[in-house]
Amino acid sequence: MSDSNSEPSRTELDNLGEFKLIEHLASQFTQKQQSTLLGIGDDAAVLIPDANCNLLVTSDMLLEGVHFDLSYTPLKHLGYKAIAVNISDIAAMNGICTQVTVNIGLSNRFSLEAIDALYEGIQMACSHYQCDLVGGDTTSSVTGLIISVTALGYVGNDRLVKRSGAKHNDLICVSGDLGAAYLGLQVLEREKQVFLANSEMQPQLDQYEYIVSRQLKAEARTDVVTWFHEQGIVPTAMIDVSDGLASDLLHICKQSVVGARVYEDRLPIEAATKDAALEFNLNPGTVTLHGGEDYELLFTVDQKHHQSIENQQGISVIGHITDTGQGAELVTASEEIVPLEAQGWRHF
Amino acid sequence: MSDSNSEPSRTELDNLGEFKLIEHLASQFTQKQQSTLLGIGDDAAVLIPDANCNLLVTSDMLLEGVHFDLSYTPLKHLGYKAIAVNISDIAAMNGICTQVTVNIGLSNRFSLEAIDALYEGIQMACSHYQCDLVGGDTTSSVTGLIISVTALGYVGNDRLVKRSGAKHNDLICVSGDLGAAYLGLQVLEREKQVFLANSEMQPQLDQYEYIVSRQLKAEARTDVVTWFHEQGIVPTAMIDVSDGLASDLLHICKQSVVGARVYEDRLPIEAATKDAALEFNLNPGTVTLHGGEDYELLFTVDQKHHQSIENQQGISVIGHITDTGQGAELVTASEEIVPLEAQGWRHF
Repeated sequence: MSDSNSEPSRTELDNLGEFKLIEHLASQFTQKQQSTLLGIGDDAAVLIPDANCNLLVTSDMLLEGVHFDLSYTPLKHLGYKAIAVNISDIAAMNGICTQVTVNIGLSNRFSLEAIDALYEGIQMACSHYQCDLVGGDTTSSVTGLIISVTALGYVGNDRLVKRSGAKHNDLICVSGDLGAAYLGLQVLEREKQVFLANSEMQPQLDQYEYIVSRQLKAEARTDVVTWFHEQGIVPTAMIDVSDGLASDLLHICKQSVVGARVYEDRLPIEAATKDAALEFNLNPGTVTLHGGEDYELLFTVDQKHHQSIENQQGISVIGHITDTGQGAELVTASEEIVPLEAQGWRHF
Repeated sequence: MSDSNSEPSRTELDNLGEFKLIEHLASQFTQKQQSTLLGIGDDAAVLIPDANCNLLVTSDMLLEGVHFDLSYTPLKHLGYKAIAVNISDIAAMNGICTQVTVNIGLSNRFSLEAIDALYEGIQMACSHYQCDLVGGDTTSSVTGLIISVTALGYVGNDRLVKRSGAKHNDLICVSGDLGAAYLGLQVLEREKQVFLANSEMQPQLDQYEYIVSRQLKAEARTDVVTWFHEQGIVPTAMIDVSDGLASDLLHICKQSVVGARVYEDRLPIEAATKDAALEFNLNPGTVTLHGGEDYELLFTVDQKHHQSIENQQGISVIGHITDTGQGAELVTASEEIVPLEAQGWRHF
């Protein structure tokens, strides 16, 4: 589970200081957006706003020991994920991210090489999603690693999608497949415990490649946003699946003041996820409903788009919006109707 | 040094959960900016960008044990400061802040009442500076309190001020007075040590009211930005004094590729600051040069504005910009010329 057997070179942050560190990190980023007039290096970044669009802003923080465990999360993956999850929030408004800022808190147990790995991931994400890193703060932390990211983006005024627009009879759809990221985490946690019990045991991850990669390599579904644009489809409501399908669908129901009916046998799950669920004595249906961090897009659309959606690989129609009075329901594989409930988020 | 002698009521965060907490906090904020279409409660905030201006973005993070000590920092003041320091960065570009996002990491040692105090300060700052809280993240922290703020603002295209525009013969000016926040911190630290040694000793802060308030009640000099606007003055370069005058002036020199000559006897210092400096066996000149966190505006202007600046109370002309070759120099009170040096920031 450790970094490497060979001794990597180690440059102490103490020998560098904050300003040199920022210069070093900033030098690795090139600007891709014409709207970025001035990036890192002044009191604030200077951008040209897109007058024809709505400006979107979102911010998320990842904390060591709460959101990630560095014993099995490579820093490069973590940097990538910190950007991707914010871009996913912009995508959930049907928007495209243009700029991000990144605040990092780190202690001197991190070497310059470790920070470089983290920023390599950040840089890869910025490059993949074509957004600019335009600012942030690098500070010492007396405890764990802290990554706080803010993303800015735009969406055409007539294409903005909120959580609150779902209407009776709209189709409920989700991109990709669900539950894999959650099971990937279970595998990583199990292998960590095995390693802690006996440090000669090397992690056995080969057969779990798909689910582990879904946990460690989060991607924002900006391709789905692009596809909506190409097809002239504007969903009526949308959210990204971060807390779990049930919890996130309930947000749409609450904010749209509607009910929902979802069919368990239509919930998209990969064979590898199902196998792992059974291995962990978990009901695959439960995992697809409540496993978080898939960062797929959950959305509702008018029935008129049924054909386009059906023809599109990688998008599943999982149910439809109902009257408010009906609440949110799940039709199980055995055709029972049960209320859909959120698994509470209780980190405190 | 403790909060109060009476037992305050305490509501555990565990009993609330994240969504309820966010609802509770969001309900206390009213929107002031017409450009805020949608604030807290969706995947991202939705704003109408100001097409005639440059968009400014800045982000800063405050960490317990590094940037603040809760044994003498009231949570309300801390919340206020977290917003003010970001607005100060927007002001340093000659801009006005319109929206902020706030990410908070907190452990269950904080009660709902404590979080309310923190957000009361955030709300007071948003109200004072007329900006909207439009989003953010509230998450558990396994260690200390973390506050990460991003501020958005605007500046007219022809009024943008960067660090890089200072020219030979420009006046170097600073608002307000310097060194007080640093000495306020020294007093608070000393009283904390006295209290730790003997908990029956109550802190003696009365005579240090000014310098302590400069440390605990940070304000952004948005009034100076408004004054520039009214006077038709556009500084050639500007930065806010967060790391200390010397360090921040050197940023201007480096980014403008110029030198500077600053006169020690022109550095603005309050009598209370000078008294405290002498009490701590510190040279008052050193304190004005290197004490950080005053959040005053350090700027350079063309000589043609000399009269307006001279007539304006609370702005001091402290020197002028010179050729690059000359470097940055301090003319001491005894008329010696010495190089101006930054006190390195070495938190790691």
